[in-house]
Amino acid sequence: MNPELRSLLDRIQPLDSEWLQRAQSRLDALTKPQGSLGRLEELAQWLVAVTGDARPKLIRKVVFLFAADHGVSREGVSAYPAAVTQQMVHNFLDGDAAINVLARQAQAEVLVADFGVAAELPPREGLLSCKIGFGTANMAEGPAMNEQQAEKAILAGARLALAEKQRGASLFATGDMGIGNTTAASALVAGLTGEPVTEVTGKGTGIDDTTFLHKVAVIQKALQINQIDRGDPLAVLARVGGFEIAGLVGVILAGAATRTPVLIDGFISGAAALVATRLAMGKPVRDYLALAHLSVERGHRRVARELCLVPLLDFRMRLGEGTGAALAMPLLDAACAIYNEMATFAQAGISEKNAPVIHHPSS
Amino acid sequence: MNPELRSLLDRIQPLDSEWLQRAQSRLDALTKPQGSLGRLEELAQWLVAVTGDARPKLIRKVVFLFAADHGVSREGVSAYPAAVTQQMVHNFLDGDAAINVLARQAQAEVLVADFGVAAELPPREGLLSCKIGFGTANMAEGPAMNEQQAEKAILAGARLALAEKQRGASLFATGDMGIGNTTAASALVAGLTGEPVTEVTGKGTGIDDTTFLHKVAVIQKALQINQIDRGDPLAVLARVGGFEIAGLVGVILAGAATRTPVLIDGFISGAAALVATRLAMGKPVRDYLALAHLSVERGHRRVARELCLVPLLDFRMRLGEGTGAALAMPLLDAACAIYNEMATFAQAGISEKNAPVIHHPSS
Repeated sequence: MNPELRSLLDRIQPLDSEWLQRAQSRLDALTKPQGSLGRLEELAQWLVAVTGDARPKLIRKVVFLFAADHGVSREGVSAYPAAVTQQMVHNFLDGDAAINVLARQAQAEVLVADFGVAAELPPREGLLSCKIGFGTANMAEGPAMNEQQAEKAILAGARLALAEKQRGASLFATGDMGIGNTTAASALVAGLTGEPVTEVTGKGTGIDDTTFLHKVAVIQKALQINQIDRGDPLAVLARVGGFEIAGLVGVILAGAATRTPVLIDGFISGAAALVATRLAMGKPVRDYLALAHLSVERGHRRVARELCLVPLLDFRMRLGEGTGAALAMPLLDAACAIYNEMATFAQAGISEKNAPVIHHPSS
Repeated sequence: MNPELRSLLDRIQPLDSEWLQRAQSRLDALTKPQGSLGRLEELAQWLVAVTGDARPKLIRKVVFLFAADHGVSREGVSAYPAAVTQQMVHNFLDGDAAINVLARQAQAEVLVADFGVAAELPPREGLLSCKIGFGTANMAEGPAMNEQQAEKAILAGARLALAEKQRGASLFATGDMGIGNTTAASALVAGLTGEPVTEVTGKGTGIDDTTFLHKVAVIQKALQINQIDRGDPLAVLARVGGFEIAGLVGVILAGAATRTPVLIDGFISGAAALVATRLAMGKPVRDYLALAHLSVERGHRRVARELCLVPLLDFRMRLGEGTGAALAMPLLDAACAIYNEMATFAQAGISEKNAPVIHHPSS
């Protein structure tokens, strides 16, 4: 393994149990029945333990929106032409796409990077270039990329994330754009879990039944041709992954290495999270992740189960771009606010549970 | 029926199908695969149709937080002493409770009203008085209130809501505080649906198993003693309801009457919504409601099913106060933003679905 990647993995530590306990104590002292804010309390505890911050606050939230094309789109697996990838990059830079709108709502920044769009994109303000190639090769005919490219993409993503951390980012969120990338994500999930392709393949942006059956066949062919070995996650990523997915693997690993909470968007991001946990072999990457939402994509449930994470929202979304992550951000902000701002029973002078019952006159 | 209440009900109209269609057309033209934002699109469509506003925006969000005591708390059905109701009212006015924190996050206002706290609350800035009595009577011994009191509370809640609408409120949210009020809510749901008490009763703020069995027995006794008749919702509300619950019924009816979206908090608010729909006999109150979250309280699932509404969040919360509603508000804001701010395919010059595939060179 590449030494830079190895040293990134080496930095990943389990969550600090002292911080977990400290957060629990404070939550239990706040003016509410213990545990009555349910998952919101769990999120607060998680944010405290991840960051080691007694007053957690997501001051700078960054969506890493990575774009790339997929050679497999030539097999006709998507409802949209591949040119949409680059068109959408311009839409992101114009600030008019769904992710821009939702990120503005959540007061998050969107960092757009070209990891391998199949066109020479003219330089534009706000567009970062981490181009590994002009789209991957067609995985139905051979490896999508080689392992050096996969590592290069992971490290490029990690470096971007580490730089943002230096600039004060307090939350990483993942986002993707790439026509054909649900095909890659399904291939990755099938390849890494051994689950039948039919169980982890969905209709992407909205293909019909015939195209869906074709998509399944293409993925099966890709897995076979590439002689997928579940035990070698880097090889799986290279053979049936994508450049933007590899980049997101880097963001996720950088988050875990720097005690930064990572909010995982939908299915593509989930596949990246699965690759990241497998690459990290035994390192608790998963402890640093939250799943923003449950995607409509069939394979996403499998990813959530594999990561032992319950998505925050179930909104039947299937857009990608980081939209689910941006939509879920206010839930994390709310968890911080509860933790930092609520009064304790002692402060408010309120009776605690099972205090002696005071009878009051009835009307 | 009281003529003021009757005229409120008369104003409730079905959603405008033309607005529904108009919203759908716009959503389908935005730069995303059709329907790919799932529930977020449905929320946007709903907000457009409820308000009849082509650019919906929740400029002023108001949480109606109504407090009252319950005579039935003398039966020992809660983990907390009844004095907590008034203590929490002060906590709300101090701005330090969970609802204050979450409302600040959501940029919502909290309107605190005393609908029947069992104490003379000294006047304080921000505290509205709609006091119907000093707590209800003990429903296990007879009616919690009489029907005139129930109507008075409904109308007081409705008048507050109508006044806020006049002042520009664009979203109503419901919130409650009242030790013993899950007992009243369970009794209402059992009384109005005929569901067995055990199926709609939960552990409230956190009672033990023995107290839970006692709570079920108390509710069963209350339903029997009060000779509950499902067909007379006002009588059911009076006999086993609560002053704050009746007030929220008024808010909900005022929302439906003035085309204002109403965000329903948890179980207590859900019971109020159920009462409101039954009182409105045939008027589509339900069309103006969204359920913020699925409460831990056992009966809430039944309420959601009865209203044919799917809660927005499932966060295992059971606090009340309007906390779930405040937590869900950013989801509605996001729905508005998507609708108002995203580019259309035409504006962005992006290829639509199934446009001729453009082959691109592979790397």
